[in-house]
Amino acid sequence: MKSTMQSPPLLISDLLRYGTTVHAKSTVTTWTPDGGRTTTYGEIGQQAAQLAHALRKLGIDGDQRVATFMWNNAEHLVTYLAVPSMGAVLHALNIRLFPEQLIYTARHGGSEIAIVDNTLAEPFAKLVEHLPGIRHVIVNGEVSDEVREALGAPEHVEQVHDFADLIAGEPTEFEWPRDLDENDASSMCYTSGTTGNPKGVAYSHRSNYTHATGCALTLQLTPADQTLVVVPLFHANAWGFPYVAMVSGNSLVMPDRFLQPEPLAQMIEQLGVTSGSGVPTIWNGLLQHLDANGGDMSTCRMLMVGGSAAPPSLMKAFQERYDIEIIHGWGMTETSPVASLAFAPPQAEVGSEEYWRYRASQGRIIAGVEARLIGPDGEEQPRDGEAVGEVEVRGPWITASYYSNGSEPQGELDDMAAKFDDGWLRTGDVGAMTDDGYIILTDRSKDVIKSGGEWISSVDLENQIMSHPAIAEASVVGVPDDKWGERPLATVVVKEGEQVTMEELRDFLADKIAKWQIPERWAVIDEVPKTSVGKFDKKVLRQRYADGDLEVETAG
Amino acid sequence: MKSTMQSPPLLISDLLRYGTTVHAKSTVTTWTPDGGRTTTYGEIGQQAAQLAHALRKLGIDGDQRVATFMWNNAEHLVTYLAVPSMGAVLHALNIRLFPEQLIYTARHGGSEIAIVDNTLAEPFAKLVEHLPGIRHVIVNGEVSDEVREALGAPEHVEQVHDFADLIAGEPTEFEWPRDLDENDASSMCYTSGTTGNPKGVAYSHRSNYTHATGCALTLQLTPADQTLVVVPLFHANAWGFPYVAMVSGNSLVMPDRFLQPEPLAQMIEQLGVTSGSGVPTIWNGLLQHLDANGGDMSTCRMLMVGGSAAPPSLMKAFQERYDIEIIHGWGMTETSPVASLAFAPPQAEVGSEEYWRYRASQGRIIAGVEARLIGPDGEEQPRDGEAVGEVEVRGPWITASYYSNGSEPQGELDDMAAKFDDGWLRTGDVGAMTDDGYIILTDRSKDVIKSGGEWISSVDLENQIMSHPAIAEASVVGVPDDKWGERPLATVVVKEGEQVTMEELRDFLADKIAKWQIPERWAVIDEVPKTSVGKFDKKVLRQRYADGDLEVETAG
Ligand SMILES: Nc1ncnc2c1ncn2[C@@H]1O[C@H](COP(=O)(O)OP(=O)(O)OP(=O)(O)O)[C@@H](O)[C@H]1O
Ligand SMILES: Nc1ncnc2c1ncn2[C@@H]1O[C@H](COP(=O)(O)OP(=O)(O)OP(=O)(O)O)[C@@H](O)[C@H]1O
Ligand SMILES: [Mg+2]
Ligand SMILES: [Mg+2]
Repeated sequence: MKSTMQSPPLLISDLLRYGTTVHAKSTVTTWTPDGGRTTTYGEIGQQAAQLAHALRKLGIDGDQRVATFMWNNAEHLVTYLAVPSMGAVLHALNIRLFPEQLIYTARHGGSEIAIVDNTLAEPFAKLVEHLPGIRHVIVNGEVSDEVREALGAPEHVEQVHDFADLIAGEPTEFEWPRDLDENDASSMCYTSGTTGNPKGVAYSHRSNYTHATGCALTLQLTPADQTLVVVPLFHANAWGFPYVAMVSGNSLVMPDRFLQPEPLAQMIEQLGVTSGSGVPTIWNGLLQHLDANGGDMSTCRMLMVGGSAAPPSLMKAFQERYDIEIIHGWGMTETSPVASLAFAPPQAEVGSEEYWRYRASQGRIIAGVEARLIGPDGEEQPRDGEAVGEVEVRGPWITASYYSNGSEPQGELDDMAAKFDDGWLRTGDVGAMTDDGYIILTDRSKDVIKSGGEWISSVDLENQIMSHPAIAEASVVGVPDDKWGERPLATVVVKEGEQVTMEELRDFLADKIAKWQIPERWAVIDEVPKTSVGKFDKKVLRQRYADGDLEVETAG
Repeated sequence: MKSTMQSPPLLISDLLRYGTTVHAKSTVTTWTPDGGRTTTYGEIGQQAAQLAHALRKLGIDGDQRVATFMWNNAEHLVTYLAVPSMGAVLHALNIRLFPEQLIYTARHGGSEIAIVDNTLAEPFAKLVEHLPGIRHVIVNGEVSDEVREALGAPEHVEQVHDFADLIAGEPTEFEWPRDLDENDASSMCYTSGTTGNPKGVAYSHRSNYTHATGCALTLQLTPADQTLVVVPLFHANAWGFPYVAMVSGNSLVMPDRFLQPEPLAQMIEQLGVTSGSGVPTIWNGLLQHLDANGGDMSTCRMLMVGGSAAPPSLMKAFQERYDIEIIHGWGMTETSPVASLAFAPPQAEVGSEEYWRYRASQGRIIAGVEARLIGPDGEEQPRDGEAVGEVEVRGPWITASYYSNGSEPQGELDDMAAKFDDGWLRTGDVGAMTDDGYIILTDRSKDVIKSGGEWISSVDLENQIMSHPAIAEASVVGVPDDKWGERPLATVVVKEGEQVTMEELRDFLADKIAKWQIPERWAVIDEVPKTSVGKFDKKVLRQRYADGDLEVETAG
């Protein structure tokens, strides 16, 4: 029996229209050297219309790709909304990738137009000669004649435009097409390249729409919120924040290039930030700044953290010292990216051990996402908080494949296809699940340490070591061991002005970790090597160990 | 360009699966003469599976209709979840409709199985002989042999079952079909018959799914909530509450047949109710009970109200005396039904005049719904809070047509078709809109009073009259007038023990209403006549006036 209901496509233009009319008074504030500059959502809607008109004139009349090379700012938000809404495909380039990765992903995506921040125009000028598909470069903000020339130098670049000039005078309304297929691509994104080369996915209008509403109902932001979006718009779909904001009407604070603890603390204080999102290193930096210099965080209620495991010590410090809930989220580029958020269930008493178990977990799956655990033998594992397996997910905002432009060798296509299991995405993340839908990651499948037939979680060890007051950072990797096959090597960064011996650290772990899991091998390092997006780069640590580049102390 | 994303159908079984696993510890508490009986969502999930198995055995293997004739209780919730999830179509019969309306809608829907509360079995026994399609009757709770026999008496009733016996022993898991079309019917519902005969719509899985997430993100309920659902599951899709609960994990309190102010106050006190939903007369009754008898409402934060206009005086009384926000919602059977919710924007200072203007409005449209105003000349009206027109809506949970089973005469089909305007639903509700998406209804199009070429809002007059301390209820209708064409007639119900003259009421209105709008005709009545579902029945008042059955005083 057919229903009688309307079934219009779920489109990003619906979110744009809603957010910029109903929530026209909400604002996006972009940080500048002189403080914040504020644009209302009403104005964002008008500029999105203007940009769409301008892009039509530059030949964007279908599903061509438009790239951005921008920080988090108002113009990037305008682009995030306008490009998909007009039926084209947004590709926000990850400015942090290593040059070869960046060129690879940008060419693979195949954009015709690039919108570039003036402060990023110089590096982009070096890039654009490798991107023969780019016909137009639009620069947001003023640049010197020299830079402008460099941008326009490659033959394939027809013209270099100024963002403000280009859209000025265009009509402030646009008839967003309603005849798009909701399953058509709205935007594309590449993984961080932590475990290999970046892989691309193409989000759809429907996936972004359902992701935005699913996140919005879980995050419960309101028009009274000022949300500081530190997570870059060029990484992992900006965790959905641009689209969530259109739905929830929360105002946004965009840090642009000012990502250091001091300006972030200023934004929170001066703009009355209530909520935010960023990776653990960002909030860790902020915490250390606050502890050293003080600061009024009283407006701030909740900061979302994800991208890699957030140490519980970080969460507790914020909660106890600043009354800020650090909400752990988990996901990946392939999952739009938010799949779970770690709000504690009401039966767990705030502050109790049970409570912190929930809060430290990677979170409860969001309504819409289904998850299961597959053990090493391919069998589904029970959700008892103990049994460990690879997490597999499916749902309306989970990818069904990687994006192929037809240029990939068969071997790569096979590798990509291997990540899918009968309609489920193999996440490559390993851990347990509780019966009430919380995911507790212990590792990436590539980072699990297999010691004498048993698994040791590198993340567990790192969290425990990082809870020692003298330790700033710790990263644990598996290294070959004659007797056990593999054993953990702990690399630690000691806080400035602190001192600690490896023996002390071992003793510190004694009542926290099973004896057989405590590392014998320790190395003090200056800094944990990070990937381009700031994740612990364990490939590098394993390599350094193999090359004998680490000063390893052995104990126990 | 195709996206790479999965696009599984959005199904009610997804909501069921999520709510009954992730939120397995949340509960539904059904009120009984001995207090609450509590079932966890985990158990609800198991019973839904059992019911689905049992219904399959009774021949429900496709999109057959299954009717309910039940109060709000755990078994009704089980049915709400199981029937659509298995691919069949739920038709919750509105037990309050007048018998002819009830028979008409039940036959029109065409159910094969009816699930009936024991306390409603007697009236259902009188009904079932008129419903030749019903093959099985399932009774929830014990009934006398006599009633049981009466239920089974019609030849077309093959068997009468006991709900608990029928599902006992069935497996507690069910493979909910994933190959349903999300646009297929999940359930059907008929309008209240306020302005004419009830008209039917058929909701889809997709419409219910998007409605539930849209409502959930606006209502912001959490698993810590205890939500008292007074709005009947048999009316207007229960305002979406059964499905919202699966998404948000809020616990439910179901009043069954105990809808009087005293037991409602007991439920709130004893079960720690935090939130709720009901029509204005329900909350008005509760208010009067509380004012007279006291009561501890301290757990309660928010009560949603809708179905007809809630007087601002009611909202203010709850807020000032009990610290409870009464949140006004608007919608209709045709809109699933929630289209807007009156949360105030942050810039309106709590308690200010601006604030109460927002709160008293019918609310801000929910993300997903689009609304526009069409003036008497067919032109779209500005959204300036002043210009008045008929509200038209569209979106993923708005109906595109009325349900026809092929039996309707052409005249009726034409009437039905006339409610749609180029993809928009003409709501029959008249009012203004603000530029930030709030709807301010002044009337139903059929109730607008046209006085000397100008429109007078009957609802405005009613709200002002009801703010007088001596008045319990007031209803205003247009009556023929030689000079002005039509003039307002105010009918008022005076509170017990109070006295007031019509002259005093006119004076009371003097500084609240434009002079030319103040009614000359007044009548004191014992009670405002109501439709079967408790809405002011203005058809009856107009008729009584025409028949000379009202004692009308003329003043001014
Ligand atoms: N809260 C979290 N706790 C632990 N790990 C997390 C968390 N959130 C994200 N991650 C890790 O980040 C991964 C997703 O990151 P992203 O999509 O940016 O690319 P990547 O997996 O780092 O790179 P690549 O797939 O190219 O190797 C997840 O699979 C998971 O391993
Ligand atoms: N908050 C509200 N304020 C004013 N009116 C409301 C509100 N909520 C609902 N209504 C009225 O209720 C109507 C929807 O009610 P419902 O779908 O139950 O059937 P009905 O319109 O009363 O009956 P019928 O369509 O058969 O005449 C709306 O069209 C509107 O007139
Ligand atoms: Mg990855
Ligand atoms: Mg109606």
